[in-house]
Amino acid sequence: MSLDISYTVDAFHRGRFHLIQPAAKGHRSGVDAMMLASVVPNEFSGRIADLGAGAGAAGLAVLSRCANATATLIERSDLMTECARLSVALPENDLFSGRCEIVQADVTSTGKARIASGIQDNSFDFAIMNPPFNEAKDRATPDSLKAEAHVMTEGMLEKWIKTAAAIVKPGGSIAIIARPASMLELLTALQRRFGSLIIVPVHPRPQDAAIRIIIKGVKGSRAEPTFYPALVMHHETGSDFTERSVAINNGVASLF
Amino acid sequence: MSLDISYTVDAFHRGRFHLIQPAAKGHRSGVDAMMLASVVPNEFSGRIADLGAGAGAAGLAVLSRCANATATLIERSDLMTECARLSVALPENDLFSGRCEIVQADVTSTGKARIASGIQDNSFDFAIMNPPFNEAKDRATPDSLKAEAHVMTEGMLEKWIKTAAAIVKPGGSIAIIARPASMLELLTALQRRFGSLIIVPVHPRPQDAAIRIIIKGVKGSRAEPTFYPALVMHHETGSDFTERSVAINNGVASLF
Repeated sequence: MSLDISYTVDAFHRGRFHLIQPAAKGHRSGVDAMMLASVVPNEFSGRIADLGAGAGAAGLAVLSRCANATATLIERSDLMTECARLSVALPENDLFSGRCEIVQADVTSTGKARIASGIQDNSFDFAIMNPPFNEAKDRATPDSLKAEAHVMTEGMLEKWIKTAAAIVKPGGSIAIIARPASMLELLTALQRRFGSLIIVPVHPRPQDAAIRIIIKGVKGSRAEPTFYPALVMHHETGSDFTERSVAINNGVASLF
Repeated sequence: MSLDISYTVDAFHRGRFHLIQPAAKGHRSGVDAMMLASVVPNEFSGRIADLGAGAGAAGLAVLSRCANATATLIERSDLMTECARLSVALPENDLFSGRCEIVQADVTSTGKARIASGIQDNSFDFAIMNPPFNEAKDRATPDSLKAEAHVMTEGMLEKWIKTAAAIVKPGGSIAIIARPASMLELLTALQRRFGSLIIVPVHPRPQDAAIRIIIKGVKGSRAEPTFYPALVMHHETGSDFTERSVAINNGVASLF
């Protein structure tokens, strides 16, 4: 396997796992993927599906921290799937790469097409997703791969959450990181599929509006949603990250 | 005017206004009403509608702080409307009672019935509401007045927000205080009516889940919702209120 484009090998979790990502093109992962992965508890044991996994940042972050987890990275793009394969093959990831499989498939595929691609219904304990979040109208770049990774199309969150509800076992969980502007669309898509929602706003600084929301839910639960205290990334001034943010970004702590 | 039940005369805003409330029955107002009122900016000038005003706590709190505001208290219950009338007539409220009118009407009334009750379309600059929030199934009390004030019926938030959208001028505002569990119902009812939503979770302590959400919106706006930093009522331990919470409760500061 090789990539005929420029790529980088990036260390995450203070070097406990590495990721191969396109240097210039596509969706380069970082803090969002680490926050998403942090929703999975340390003691989690079972099968995780990383929907729209890209190069695998969130899924590998879970595997690196949770010794009893296995992960299925589900990604549509040829290039990003290849990055994920190369990432998993890195000797630096040997400690957990045996617990990772990669499936090239469109998250929005349904029914027989989804099953044919290797994703079975009611077969995962946890689905995690960091869906594309730029509106099509915001697209300012001619870079089609980047556009594909970042552009949220009409009804997309509904389709992604519908897939998650299909492939997660009853009582299994979902975790989503998204923009606050998507709250209504997310809550609408989650209702009657996932309950016991825990919503955590992510603020860049204590005094700033949230730039992300993290949602965890339980399939089939009817319990009411809960708003937990926010995750704050930086202090009021300066560029240092907060202690909690550093711990989450480095895979030392889970969000809950 | 007189009340043939036991009532209390309660000081708010460090004695700057007083409220007559049933001692035992009905919806006794307090911190929620003060937080709701705090959404209106100090410099606000115009007409406010307090929907489901009860004895008038939120509306009077706005009048007490905002010298250029006039308020219409809209309340269905005979007893609570009478409390509001007696409250407005208190000498202690002379400073602003000339800027307050009371309309006995059901917030959920529509069309000609609403206009006949004295509430005109497109006639207010701000609507504020602290709707009943207990589910009917939670009702454990035989106290029918208390039940009426506290019980949220099916589709109620949709009806209240529809009324607010009708009576507020284009570009006017809405403020709501509600339970986090109502988030989806609120966002659904607000969409295509109010935009530029600012959502503020209210946490009892920094480490606790939110017990309320405050939402502000602008009629006709299409701008995305924003999650602002939370309002935290107490410190991590102890019974003291936070400085910000004290200022809001005493009408010294507005929320934004």
